[in-house]
Formats: sequence, structure tokens, C-alpha cells
Amino acid sequence: MERLKERILRDGRVKEGNIIKVDSFLNHQIDIALLNEIGREFKRLFDGEKITKILTIEASGIAIACITAQYFHVPVVFAKKAASQNIDGDVYTSAIMSFTHGNEYTAILEKRFLTPEDRVLILDDFLATGKAQLGMLDIAGQAGASVAGIGIVIEKGFQGGGDKLRAAGYNLQSLAIIDGMENCTIRFRD
Amino acid sequence: MERLKERILRDGRVKEGNIIKVDSFLNHQIDIALLNEIGREFKRLFDGEKITKILTIEASGIAIACITAQYFHVPVVFAKKAASQNIDGDVYTSAIMSFTHGNEYTAILEKRFLTPEDRVLILDDFLATGKAQLGMLDIAGQAGASVAGIGIVIEKGFQGGGDKLRAAGYNLQSLAIIDGMENCTIRFRD
Repeated sequence: MERLKERILRDGRVKEGNIIKVDSFLNHQIDIALLNEIGREFKRLFDGEKITKILTIEASGIAIACITAQYFHVPVVFAKKAASQNIDGDVYTSAIMSFTHGNEYTAILEKRFLTPEDRVLILDDFLATGKAQLGMLDIAGQAGASVAGIGIVIEKGFQGGGDKLRAAGYNLQSLAIIDGMENCTIRFRD
Repeated sequence: MERLKERILRDGRVKEGNIIKVDSFLNHQIDIALLNEIGREFKRLFDGEKITKILTIEASGIAIACITAQYFHVPVVFAKKAASQNIDGDVYTSAIMSFTHGNEYTAILEKRFLTPEDRVLILDDFLATGKAQLGMLDIAGQAGASVAGIGIVIEKGFQGGGDKLRAAGYNLQSLAIIDGMENCTIRFRD
């Protein structure tokens, strides 16, 4: 998605440790007009997939999921993050290792919000090692829901998580794939 | 807002400890069509206020803020929650006591995303004791931003936070105010 790539080049900031900060438009301050374009692009990419729900994980995934859901006319469900495995109630859980924060957390989703009748589109702002996406796939699998695909705004291609998901057969669509950030220069995959 | 009240009566669940769960349509699973109605109602209530940014706090506030921002054509900024006061960088912080979780957290916002030129609309899903709203007002004050108003989806009127904010002169608009939940019966303020 060209306008997204231009925006990453203009406003993204490369930080030590292969971090790219896009918090002026994607995940701290949010440019809603850009998000609407992102939502329309996901609709184009996953049109005809008979999606019943959009699945994401708090916090910044919620923005993308809600704006995009308007184009699919389906509800959003978001997994919550908890520090502990000690969760009460009728919930699906999946342990996820966070690359950004260097800790493990548990993603939680109430069972009544995802069933075998559901066909989900998994959305998130970033994909790096793919741990958050694997956690959402795990939760969808526990629910018996089918997965129409995975939509990502920015994939850090050089961290390999995306290519592993593609090799596993998932329909993964990333709107921008960064293959390198050497010398603070962002290099996109064609 | 009548349709919201009907939905609360139909799908809300009253729990021990004055808790009302609306997670089937507002803050775990999200009904986007309802959120669009909520967004249009906030636009009606705060129209003409020359709002430059919508300010909220993660996580469930993000959904309401992003959908509503489409009607105001302004960006969203959301404060992040952190467990510790030890925050690096050029940020505003405010300590907030959580009624729901019974712990204290720190709300954080990068300084470059809120300035004295901004006029913010503060949005959130719930208002109970008002601590989260006071935290956002504190951050807006630190930034020197002016506050056009506070929009809340569900106010728990019997916990008093909303009336304190009104008494302090804020333009607080809650789309549904619950004044009591005795015997699992929800009583709205007229």
C-alpha cells in the first residue's frame, strides 16, 4: 500500500534494536483517515471470504480492527492481555512472548465470543516474530473457528514470523513489509 | 441515547460489587454499528466545539475514540497504561487508581502529541469514580491543552464521579447514566 509506505518513510523513526516507531500515526496518535484507507485495503484483499468476526488483541490492534470492521459489517472481538495464567471463567487463553516488551503475557478471550460457526479475519498493527498472531491462531483453533486470513499493517519481514505463517499456509496479507533497516534506512520488500 | 439504554437492558449483566458487564457489545466484543451511532451522538453533543484531537486511554476507549473521530475529522491520541512510575522519555504521566482492577497504574502520553494549541474531547467507555477522567484532565492540563468536554458511553451515576466533574464545570455528556442496580435491576437517570 503505497500511501502507507510513504507515511512510514516520512514519519517512522528507526530506533536501536530493530525497532521502528510509527507512534505519530498508528499506535499512540492515530491518523483516522489513513486507518480508513487501511480498512478499505483489507476489505479489498479479503473480500468474498465470508468473514463473521474480526479478531485482534489489545491495545493498538483495536483501532485497526474497529475501523476495518465497518467495511466488513461484522463485530470485533479483542483478546485481552493479562500478566498471569490465573484467569477465572469460561475463557480461551494463550501464552504469548512479547518481542517489544521482552515479557510473557496471556491473551484471554471469553468463549462465548468465538464459536465453530465463526470465520475470522485476524488483524494487527505489527508482525515481527509472529508470536501474537500464533496466539490468536491458537485461540481461534481452541474455539473451532476457521481463519479466513491474517491482515497486518506493518510486517518486519527480516524477523521471519510472516514467512513462517505463509509457509504454514495462512493467507497473510501485510500492507507494508520492511526487509531491512540498516543505517536507519528502511528497505521495503517489493 | 435510547438505543444504547435498550441494549444495556437487553445484553448488560449485573455482577456483584456494583459491576455492570457490557462485554458482548462494548468492551470485549464490539458492535461497530452501535459504535457508529455513539460516534454520531457525540458529534451532535460536541458540535461546534472546534475540537482538534480526541483523547482517550487504552484499551477499550480506543474503539470509541477511533469510530467517533471519523465524525470530527481529527486524530486520536490514547494514553498508555504502565505498571510503574519509572517511565523514560519526554512524556506526560498521571497516576490513576483503577476501580475495576483495584490497583494503581500510570497513564502516559508522549508530549509531542498534545500541545497548548490543542482543544481535546476526552472520550471513554465508562465513568465510575472518575479517576481515569481526572488522569486525562491532568495530562491535558500538563500539556496546556484546553478541554472541550468529556464524552462517556456509560456513567455509573451512583458512584459520584460524574457529578463531581459537572460541579467542577466540565461539559460532561454521558449517553447512559445508571443511578442504581438494586436486585439486578438497572435504573437509569432520566
